[in-house]
Amino acid sequence: MKRYFISLLVLMAFGQVTFAQQAIFDKQNTQSPQVNSDNSVTFRLYAPKAQKVQVHGDFMEGIQDMTNENGLWSFTTPANLSPELYMYWFRVDGIDMQDPGNLMRSRDVRTHMSNFIITKEEGDKGYLYQNHNVAHGNVSEVWYESPKLGMIRRMTIYTPAGYEKGGKYPVMYLLHGAGGDEEAWPTLGRTAQIMDNLIASGKAAPMIVVMPNGNASDDASPYATGLTHKQKPATTYEESFTDIMNYVQKNYRIKKGAKNTAICGLSMGGYHTFSISNLHPGKFDYIGLYSAAIRMGWRQENQPLEEYLEEKQGKAIEAVFAANPQLYWVAIGNTDFLYEQNKSLRNYFDKKGYKYEYFESDGGHIWRNWRIYLTMFAQRLFK
Amino acid sequence: MKRYFISLLVLMAFGQVTFAQQAIFDKQNTQSPQVNSDNSVTFRLYAPKAQKVQVHGDFMEGIQDMTNENGLWSFTTPANLSPELYMYWFRVDGIDMQDPGNLMRSRDVRTHMSNFIITKEEGDKGYLYQNHNVAHGNVSEVWYESPKLGMIRRMTIYTPAGYEKGGKYPVMYLLHGAGGDEEAWPTLGRTAQIMDNLIASGKAAPMIVVMPNGNASDDASPYATGLTHKQKPATTYEESFTDIMNYVQKNYRIKKGAKNTAICGLSMGGYHTFSISNLHPGKFDYIGLYSAAIRMGWRQENQPLEEYLEEKQGKAIEAVFAANPQLYWVAIGNTDFLYEQNKSLRNYFDKKGYKYEYFESDGGHIWRNWRIYLTMFAQRLFK
Repeated sequence: MKRYFISLLVLMAFGQVTFAQQAIFDKQNTQSPQVNSDNSVTFRLYAPKAQKVQVHGDFMEGIQDMTNENGLWSFTTPANLSPELYMYWFRVDGIDMQDPGNLMRSRDVRTHMSNFIITKEEGDKGYLYQNHNVAHGNVSEVWYESPKLGMIRRMTIYTPAGYEKGGKYPVMYLLHGAGGDEEAWPTLGRTAQIMDNLIASGKAAPMIVVMPNGNASDDASPYATGLTHKQKPATTYEESFTDIMNYVQKNYRIKKGAKNTAICGLSMGGYHTFSISNLHPGKFDYIGLYSAAIRMGWRQENQPLEEYLEEKQGKAIEAVFAANPQLYWVAIGNTDFLYEQNKSLRNYFDKKGYKYEYFESDGGHIWRNWRIYLTMFAQRLFK
Repeated sequence: MKRYFISLLVLMAFGQVTFAQQAIFDKQNTQSPQVNSDNSVTFRLYAPKAQKVQVHGDFMEGIQDMTNENGLWSFTTPANLSPELYMYWFRVDGIDMQDPGNLMRSRDVRTHMSNFIITKEEGDKGYLYQNHNVAHGNVSEVWYESPKLGMIRRMTIYTPAGYEKGGKYPVMYLLHGAGGDEEAWPTLGRTAQIMDNLIASGKAAPMIVVMPNGNASDDASPYATGLTHKQKPATTYEESFTDIMNYVQKNYRIKKGAKNTAICGLSMGGYHTFSISNLHPGKFDYIGLYSAAIRMGWRQENQPLEEYLEEKQGKAIEAVFAANPQLYWVAIGNTDFLYEQNKSLRNYFDKKGYKYEYFESDGGHIWRNWRIYLTMFAQRLFK
């Protein structure tokens, strides 16, 4: 009944051609992407004037030509795509664009991409990245004062289901990579979905997840807020990190102490994790480096990494391991361009006899891996 | 220094061609849109193979051809665009796409559009829609249990700057239109920016703004969460609205009573506002209908609206006005397709001698108007 009257309203709207009505009608109502029963996926684009239409996605190598039939271009992937959140875009006569038939999109740094999720059974990767009928945590865009940076800055905070009812919770700080911002982990990282599903199935402890903006010169992502205020940072992001921890401690009901505090991050956020944990030995019982940049910011180019680590961070790293963290976790893909850096780091740790765990995945410096690392790391915490 | 090392990392990444690096490099680094000193705007797209490139935006009538110079297509608007958040898209050989040079985008129901903001001076419309150096409220995606709908559902809640420090606040319920969801007001509606700027300048009282999902069959927007759970609603959204109010009352520090409670909404959300306020006479001291659909869902097609209002809602409306609300506000654009419905409503109110205020803007059923209405209405509340 309700639906009928909504249709009525829409029909009325149709009588009038204005800009706004564009929004209600999807004129290219060609289904795309279509997940087929064999778990292949068909993409479609109606582009009768195009000479060449291609699709580029992280479910296959290279860019693929789509086939034209009366102006409807299509491409079907091989069968049996494995569970995953996949990203893709179309290239029409050389111009990249998102799939107009697919409203599910994410911004990855400076590129918008279409995406879709393949899931085959409860608990698989694709399943973990979706909203399911479980208790959900809330996700907040929170502004905090950073006296050390002299700015009011924005971060994203996940509080687990039931947080409103009381109790204290451990905290994971989850840091993004270069060019990213406080929207990276909540969107492409699927943090809320992963945490909701892991917590609901008892695989992860209920925890608060703090996702700050790691660009010390910015107050917030400009794309959501309409404007970033930039200023020359008075100190480094790593030095200012205590402002974030202080805010969280003051405004959230957290369990204190190292055993209730984890820090992890990807790429530049891995560098931040490394640096911040080195600044505060014994403060974090769980440290996770995801495809971490180890030599950002403080390594002379010509000096071997291990030598530089020893010279500049040796005492700090020693103190970190002397505090005997529950888990020091290093993860990277076997084709990641930072693989050698991480190998040097592991060599350094090995020579020193420091206790850490290492996980090596397939693939490179990609979100697919970072979601996997978050999923694995989160299950190891606070137990 | 930091910037230098980020560049280094990026250069290293460049050595390797993988999918992920796409995200870091914006190969179409043609500036678009470019706001010129005369407040015209230039759009650019590099499309050497295209036959025809056009731009369609709400800053001008119709769709405009762009000019090709060696494959770089461009178009400059007339000078002196007035302060506003504008939306636009490109049409390349008949295919609509977003401006790849512009990362600022919003989804309006089922269409993604590029957007940009023109501002000329502090306090103008464009200014109000941006993040400025003022105290900011937080925006949360909150899941609440709706016993009446038998679902756990998602809504968006704005808490004003300083909320964390204590105190009680009045509440505005702000409802979206047909096809929209709990992301509509926070994105295209610019709620947080408008409220931050109005509150910071003393023009609006600090208040909590609750933006629910008005689609009774859905638990949440699928585009952010990866999946919507749909079910046949056990009751109407309007009937279930008390679940939302109960959740807010229980979980937020609110000032109670009609004088601290406002409800307003656009289009279908205007219909919801009308219906919900009729269901609860004396509960809301501030009622705002923005381009409201008056006859959704309960009007027989052939019966004149005024007659139907009298027959089905007459007693409820009488009770609403008998409670003497501080402000019953009706706003609509002079070319809105719902103009006549709203005229009938006003006629009905006039004949009954009910006290309301009316605001008529230029233009139609568009977000530009809804942002204006929110800006005006918010300044009238809780004073």
